[in-house]
Amino acid sequence: MSKYHKITLTENEIPEYWYNIVADMPNKPLPPLHPGTHEPIGPDALAPLFPMALIQQEVSQERWIGIPEEVRDVYKLWRPTPLYRAHNLEKALDTPAKIYYKYEGVSPAGSHKPNTAVPQAYYNKQEGVSRITTETGAGQWGSALSFACQYFGIRCEIYMVKISYEQKPYRKLMMNTWGADVYPSPSNRTQAGRQILAADPDSPGSLGIAISEAVEVAAANDDTKYSLGSVLNHVLMHQTVIGQEALLQMEKAGDLPDVVIAPFGGGSNFAGLSFPFLRLNLTEGKKIRFLASEPTSAPKLTRGVFRYDFGDTIGMTPLLPMYTLGHTFVPAKIHAGGLRYHGAGVIVSQLLRDKLIEAEAIDQIESFEAGVLFARTEGIIPAPEANHAIASAVREANRAKEAGVSRTILFNLCGHGHFDMGAYEAYFAGHLQRHELSQAEIDDAIAKIDTPAIPA
Amino acid sequence: MSKYHKITLTENEIPEYWYNIVADMPNKPLPPLHPGTHEPIGPDALAPLFPMALIQQEVSQERWIGIPEEVRDVYKLWRPTPLYRAHNLEKALDTPAKIYYKYEGVSPAGSHKPNTAVPQAYYNKQEGVSRITTETGAGQWGSALSFACQYFGIRCEIYMVKISYEQKPYRKLMMNTWGADVYPSPSNRTQAGRQILAADPDSPGSLGIAISEAVEVAAANDDTKYSLGSVLNHVLMHQTVIGQEALLQMEKAGDLPDVVIAPFGGGSNFAGLSFPFLRLNLTEGKKIRFLASEPTSAPKLTRGVFRYDFGDTIGMTPLLPMYTLGHTFVPAKIHAGGLRYHGAGVIVSQLLRDKLIEAEAIDQIESFEAGVLFARTEGIIPAPEANHAIASAVREANRAKEAGVSRTILFNLCGHGHFDMGAYEAYFAGHLQRHELSQAEIDDAIAKIDTPAIPA
Repeated sequence: MSKYHKITLTENEIPEYWYNIVADMPNKPLPPLHPGTHEPIGPDALAPLFPMALIQQEVSQERWIGIPEEVRDVYKLWRPTPLYRAHNLEKALDTPAKIYYKYEGVSPAGSHKPNTAVPQAYYNKQEGVSRITTETGAGQWGSALSFACQYFGIRCEIYMVKISYEQKPYRKLMMNTWGADVYPSPSNRTQAGRQILAADPDSPGSLGIAISEAVEVAAANDDTKYSLGSVLNHVLMHQTVIGQEALLQMEKAGDLPDVVIAPFGGGSNFAGLSFPFLRLNLTEGKKIRFLASEPTSAPKLTRGVFRYDFGDTIGMTPLLPMYTLGHTFVPAKIHAGGLRYHGAGVIVSQLLRDKLIEAEAIDQIESFEAGVLFARTEGIIPAPEANHAIASAVREANRAKEAGVSRTILFNLCGHGHFDMGAYEAYFAGHLQRHELSQAEIDDAIAKIDTPAIPA
Repeated sequence: MSKYHKITLTENEIPEYWYNIVADMPNKPLPPLHPGTHEPIGPDALAPLFPMALIQQEVSQERWIGIPEEVRDVYKLWRPTPLYRAHNLEKALDTPAKIYYKYEGVSPAGSHKPNTAVPQAYYNKQEGVSRITTETGAGQWGSALSFACQYFGIRCEIYMVKISYEQKPYRKLMMNTWGADVYPSPSNRTQAGRQILAADPDSPGSLGIAISEAVEVAAANDDTKYSLGSVLNHVLMHQTVIGQEALLQMEKAGDLPDVVIAPFGGGSNFAGLSFPFLRLNLTEGKKIRFLASEPTSAPKLTRGVFRYDFGDTIGMTPLLPMYTLGHTFVPAKIHAGGLRYHGAGVIVSQLLRDKLIEAEAIDQIESFEAGVLFARTEGIIPAPEANHAIASAVREANRAKEAGVSRTILFNLCGHGHFDMGAYEAYFAGHLQRHELSQAEIDDAIAKIDTPAIPA
C-alpha cells in the first residue's frame, strides 16, 4: 500500500448536472420575504440583482440541472479535483479511522469558489450583463469571481472588507491581475458606505456592509448585476460538483464515508461536498452523518436562532429563513480563521432544523493546531477555513480510537493557505487567542434581531 | 473542441526511472576540479557534502536509474502533473501555433523543486543523515526541501538570501510551517557569513554567499549534509520525471513539439522538461528545438563564457565547467524575475557548447507582460521564473504567425506566483525597469574570473 493514495478522475467524469437537493428535502425551504412588506416574494423581485437563469435555479425544484458545456469547459482547467486518503495523518493520530479528503485548492483561485463563480459569470454574460458587483472578505470569493469575469469578458467590481484590503494586499493584487476593480468597504462610492462611514469613519468593514454596497450598485444600474459567493440556493447547487466527484472517487476506492465534514461559512462549501452524499440518506436509506464545522467566533449553527433575517447589514436584501446571529453581528477582531458570515444558507438551515445534518464549533487555536499537523503530515498547507474541517476530522478520528472502532471520514480541504500565511504567522507567534462568545454576547446579538418570526 | 484541453495521467503512469542524459551525450561532461589543486576529483571528494547514493548518481553513466518506491509514493501527492493545451492563449495571440504547457505548480511547494527535494531527503535519510543545509533565494527551493525533510524526519537548516528573507516573510513562514530553521544570509553563524559581513555589514546577500554558508556548515558537521536545488547532474536527472510525463501526454494528445521551452536558472527546470525529448534527437534522429529562456539580468548562457568556475561566492565548492558570468556576479537589485544564479549546470553547458540546445534572454518587462497575458487567458498566475518561458513561447507563436505556418510549442509552467505577488505589484505600478547589461558590465564580470581555462 502506498503512503499516498490519490484517486483521480478523467475530464469526461466531470459531472454533467448539478444536484438540487430541494427536490429530495422532506420539508422544503420557506419562501423569502420582501424586506419592506414581509410578504413572500416571487422570482421577479430578484430580477434587478440576478440574471433570470440564476433566479430560475434559485427557485427550481428540479433534481438535476444541466451544466452548460461552456461551463464544463472552464471547469476542465482544474476539475476533476483529486481525492486523497490521508495515510500520514492517520498514522500521526494512531487512529483506526480511515481519513479521506477532497482537495479543491487546485483551482486557479486556490479554493472551491470558482465552481460557482464560473457559471454565475457565464449566465450573466448570456443575458448581456456587462458588469458584476460583489463583496469579498478574506478574498477567496473575490479572486474566484475576478477569474470567472475575466474569462467571459465581464467587468468585475469588488467591495473588499477594509481590514482585509489593508492586511491582504496580495489577494487584492490577485484580483487586479485578473482585471477586477477592488475597493475597500465601507467606501464613499455608495449611500450604504457613506452611511456607515458617517457613523464610524474608522469602520474596519464587514461582509454585511460590503454586501450592502455591492447590492446597491447593482440595483441602481441596468447593465450591472450582483453575485454572491455562498448562502443562496443556486450557489450551493453549483458546488455539488465537489460531492458528485467525491462520491465517484469513494466508489473507486471501494469505500463510503460514515461521516462527511466540511467548513461552514454561508454553506456552499459544506453543501458542495455533502449534498450528493446526503441524497443517499434521503433516497436510499443510508445513514451517513454530516458535520458542519463552524468557528466559535461566529457560531450561527450551534448558538444562533432560526429566524427570518437580512443577508446584509443595512437591510437591503430579501429576508431569508436562516440560522443567524443577527445581520449586524460582526465577529471579534481577534478571529483569524475566516467563515465570518452572520447567517447560514436557507437550505442548510432547514436541513439542520430537520436534524438531517449536525454542526459543531471549533476554536481557532484548535483549528490551526489541526492545520499545522495536516501540513506536516500530508504536505498541503490548508486555508484557515479548511482547518476547521480538519479539526473536526481529528476529533472524529480520536473518538474512533477511543471507541476502538474503524470509521471512514471524508472532509473538504476547500483551499490552500498561500494567501493566509499571515494568520499562520500569528498562530506560530502565539498571538491568536482562544475565543468563545459568552452567553450574554450571544443573547445580546440575538436580541437585536427585529425581523419577522418564523411562522409556526 | 473544448476550450481547455487537459491531458492527465494516472498514478501508475508516474515514471519508474529517472533519465540520465549523460549516457546519450556525444561529448561527455568534463570532470570537476579540486578548488585548490585544480586536479580532477573523484566521487570521494564529494563525500563530506552528499550521501554516497547521490554522488553515485552524480557521476553515473547509466541511462535509466530506478526511482525508489518510497520516493514514488511521495510523488503521488501531486504527480502526475497535468499538461494543458493553451487554447485561450493561442486565440489571444491569433497564432496558427499550438501551445502546450506542463504545469508543475500543483506540488505542495508550488513548483517543480520537490521532484528533487524528495529523493535528496530520502537518500540522506537512508544514510543516517540527521540534518540537511541548503540555500534559497526567492524561496521555492527552500520550501521544497523543508517539505521533503519534514516528510522523512530530517532537520532542515536554510540560509535565505537576506533581501528575500526581508521581502518575502510568507515564503519563510511556509518553510517554518514545514518545520525548517531559516536564517538570513549572510549570517553570523558561519565564517563565510562573518567574512562577507565584515566587508559589508549591509550586504543584501546572494545565492552564492548563501551556498558558501550552507556548504561550510555541512562540511564541518558529520551528521549534516548539503543539498543543492539545481545545477548538479543528479538534480537535473531527478527533474526528468517532468519531461517523461509530458512526452507520454503529448503522445496521448497525438502531437509532438517542434520546440520545447523552459526557464533557465541553474538548469534543472529546463533539463527536467527537455531531456526526455532531447533523447529523441540523440537516439532517434528527431529534430526538436530546445530553447532555454534566461533573464537579461543574468545572461550566462547568451553572454557568459564557458569556463571552470566555483558554484559559490567564497570559492569552497569544486570547480565545474560551465557557462558563467563569474562566481562573484550578482544581478542588479532592480531584477525581480528570479533565475539569478551566476552559472549553468555542467550538462546543460556542454549541450549548449555542442549546439544541441539554444538559449535566449528575456527582459523582465517582457516576461511580466507575457505572465499577465497568460493569467488573463489561461487562468493560472505564473511564477516570475515561468514568465520567461511564457515570453519565449509568445515569441515563437508570433514568429509562426508571421511565417504563416503551424508549429507545436511546449513549455514548462514550473510554478505558480502566489508568493510573488509583490513582483506583480511592482510591475503593475510601473516600478520595474527594462534591464540589459552593457558590454562593459559583461566584460568586467568575466574579467574577474580567475579560475582555470577549459583545456583545448
